[in-house]
Amino acid sequence: GDPAAGRAKAAACKTCHGLDGVARIPIAPHIAGESEVYLETQLKAFRSGKRTHEIMSVIAKDLSDADISDLAAWYASIAFTVQMPE
Amino acid sequence: GDPAAGRAKAAACKTCHGLDGVARIPIAPHIAGESEVYLETQLKAFRSGKRTHEIMSVIAKDLSDADISDLAAWYASIAFTVQMPE
Repeated sequence: GDPAAGRAKAAACKTCHGLDGVARIPIAPHIAGESEVYLETQLKAFRSGKRTHEIMSVIAKDLSDADISDLAAWYASIAFTVQMPE
Repeated sequence: GDPAAGRAKAAACKTCHGLDGVARIPIAPHIAGESEVYLETQLKAFRSGKRTHEIMSVIAKDLSDADISDLAAWYASIAFTVQMPE
């Protein structure tokens, strides 16, 4: 997918997930740096109904394959580093 | 939950998710720094069957509420920072 196109399409996602993939609400997952295959699998699962959520099922319903591929590319393009507690 | 207890119990998770929550395989999500409520919700969904996955459904089946709470506390305790592409 095209990350730049995905960044624009992420306007629909950023309220809960953030444009940077850092969730703004605790019930939403952080998706920064998730792999494209994981993100695409989950969005397609929400679209097909294999996975359900009161918000994501509605949002995913109208996503095209290109939308899904671009959104996955955008969020996968965000780098992250972790620090484990001592 | 107790992050230290969760860290020990994460022996069952680290093969795919990493002890640090950075996924080792592309089909598994990064779970570093996810919120406790999100992690607990997903583990309970896998345990109850509300959410299904060939591996997670099996692993979650035998998790107690305490296991779920401790694992969520461990992975939620991992800090992370993100860098958006320019």
